[in-house]
Amino acid sequence: MSVTLAVDAMGGDHGIVVTVPASTGLLAELPDLHIRLVGNADLINQALSQVPSEIKSRITVVHASEVVTMDDSIEVALRKKKDSSMRVAAEQVKEGLAQAAISAGNTGALMAISRYVLKTLDGIDRPAIAAVMPNQLGRGTIVLDLGANADCEAIHLLQFAQMADVMARAVDGIANPTIGLLNIGEEVIKGNQVVKEAGELLRQSSLNFYGNVEGNDIFKGTTNIVVCDGFVGNVALKTSEGLAYMISGLIKEEFSRNWISRLMALAAMPVLLRFKKRVDHRNYNGAVLLGLRGLVLKSHGSADKKAFTTALRRAYEGAKNNMVGKVADAFMVTHATNSHNETVA
Amino acid sequence: MSVTLAVDAMGGDHGIVVTVPASTGLLAELPDLHIRLVGNADLINQALSQVPSEIKSRITVVHASEVVTMDDSIEVALRKKKDSSMRVAAEQVKEGLAQAAISAGNTGALMAISRYVLKTLDGIDRPAIAAVMPNQLGRGTIVLDLGANADCEAIHLLQFAQMADVMARAVDGIANPTIGLLNIGEEVIKGNQVVKEAGELLRQSSLNFYGNVEGNDIFKGTTNIVVCDGFVGNVALKTSEGLAYMISGLIKEEFSRNWISRLMALAAMPVLLRFKKRVDHRNYNGAVLLGLRGLVLKSHGSADKKAFTTALRRAYEGAKNNMVGKVADAFMVTHATNSHNETVA
Repeated sequence: MSVTLAVDAMGGDHGIVVTVPASTGLLAELPDLHIRLVGNADLINQALSQVPSEIKSRITVVHASEVVTMDDSIEVALRKKKDSSMRVAAEQVKEGLAQAAISAGNTGALMAISRYVLKTLDGIDRPAIAAVMPNQLGRGTIVLDLGANADCEAIHLLQFAQMADVMARAVDGIANPTIGLLNIGEEVIKGNQVVKEAGELLRQSSLNFYGNVEGNDIFKGTTNIVVCDGFVGNVALKTSEGLAYMISGLIKEEFSRNWISRLMALAAMPVLLRFKKRVDHRNYNGAVLLGLRGLVLKSHGSADKKAFTTALRRAYEGAKNNMVGKVADAFMVTHATNSHNETVA
Repeated sequence: MSVTLAVDAMGGDHGIVVTVPASTGLLAELPDLHIRLVGNADLINQALSQVPSEIKSRITVVHASEVVTMDDSIEVALRKKKDSSMRVAAEQVKEGLAQAAISAGNTGALMAISRYVLKTLDGIDRPAIAAVMPNQLGRGTIVLDLGANADCEAIHLLQFAQMADVMARAVDGIANPTIGLLNIGEEVIKGNQVVKEAGELLRQSSLNFYGNVEGNDIFKGTTNIVVCDGFVGNVALKTSEGLAYMISGLIKEEFSRNWISRLMALAAMPVLLRFKKRVDHRNYNGAVLLGLRGLVLKSHGSADKKAFTTALRRAYEGAKNNMVGKVADAFMVTHATNSHNETVA
């Protein structure tokens, strides 16, 4: 079965400069891949002028006249810009022209548009944002929600766990993924009210529930999946990004302090590069918007070609393995009567 | 004015092996410091046998027959072990025999005991745990609450900000500290209900409120103080610890992979050591239990001599600058009628 991805070519800090080369690069690698590049057709065709015809034959350019910017409110993105590249990309999935949409644009807008265009799956109250964070074991830990739901009830945390369980099986090929509930140190008060209730629900479920985990367990890789509300998850993600940035800045600063340090950096370069490769966040780009009737991935806004390729590859794997269908099946069994497809616009 | 500290000599992973040398080391440095070492008198006296008499003359050994372990529940620590070194240390402050107590023991127990023995200040509903986290500017960011209050209302976040404001002035000598409210990306939903309300209260207050900040701002040093509830703060802290641990592990692993790498590590050692020094968490040890009628500091359980000395020094600065008196004054002005001193045992 071939896979078609719809790429919001205009999204992110770099737009076409990144999205088009990443797309053509992955097309060259995967012969059963098709890509629908959505955005300003003139600019996209220009960027494609040097691309070999075999690759081009698996590209469809879909024109969209507008672009959602990082500053656009959800209101503007959803109601004013109805011909945005982001929205048209989501519509490709809705219309069955693509099996997944990928955008590096505004997260809030992408979630709102995807939710409006695709709707949520039966039995799912709240879609969530799930991404892989690196861990000591080199495998990566799936963490969700990373910011879609600032206020959550216990039942939502259970649903996040159920969705991530399917994703871990379908995309990452993990047989019986372990699930941790993000909580605070046992030596202090054991969590807030919502987390305590969520723990109860998870214990009663058929999931492979490990129990409570703490912030450091994300990087230890204690469990395959870590579940938390979107506020806590977003803080954990941004705090990690901030610390990693600070540490890499300090390493650079110390190695470029004077000519002796620079000489040492040169000597240690092979090791430093190997280290850099192992903690390279670009290998973990591509957050999945879980719980929709279609696969949508969010790339980091600052993604370069390599990072955006990782997101595309993750979308390809998700589509190839029918992730959305499997999530839908999992919820059809357990939540046959519990549909909440809101229409927000 | 001389300063007397009460040290829980038995607390932490290492107990006397760390607490006694750290105490005598700081006594040698600060001639106006006295220390009351609380714990098993026999063991403490044994550890003091080689200490010069001038230093010893500023040490008082206070016997306590019990020790709160890391596994003890708050219940056990508070109601069963009434002669624990932790509790007797807090009582030294209560009785005016010391101006601050320091323990590396069980955080939950220390908070519960301190709250019971010392009571909260007038106008403060909830004590909080505040610590300094390193930032790019090399100054450190005060973050609170780090785990005392898993469920918070907006008014509590305001009180945390007010207490930290006084601490930043009194202990860290910051003239007009800026305060950030920890929130999630603007591009997503702007925070949960409690944070939105807290933002309103902070804007109306006389504090130097900067506005919302995100997780990465802790390490950027965007504001002097970052306020959040204890659940979020604890996750941010533990996540950071986990990431730092993973990164340092990977650096070590890469530099010891083979003899060429080890040679490179040797060559780069001066730079690596300088880097290590700058991110050394031991320079940031010592969380303050804010909001009590007495100064209590919590050291990391795994603290070594250097780290425990940092906590002692911070306690000394807080006592010397009458931090608790200043917090009390600040709250007496604004909350004259709002006393909630609970008795939990």
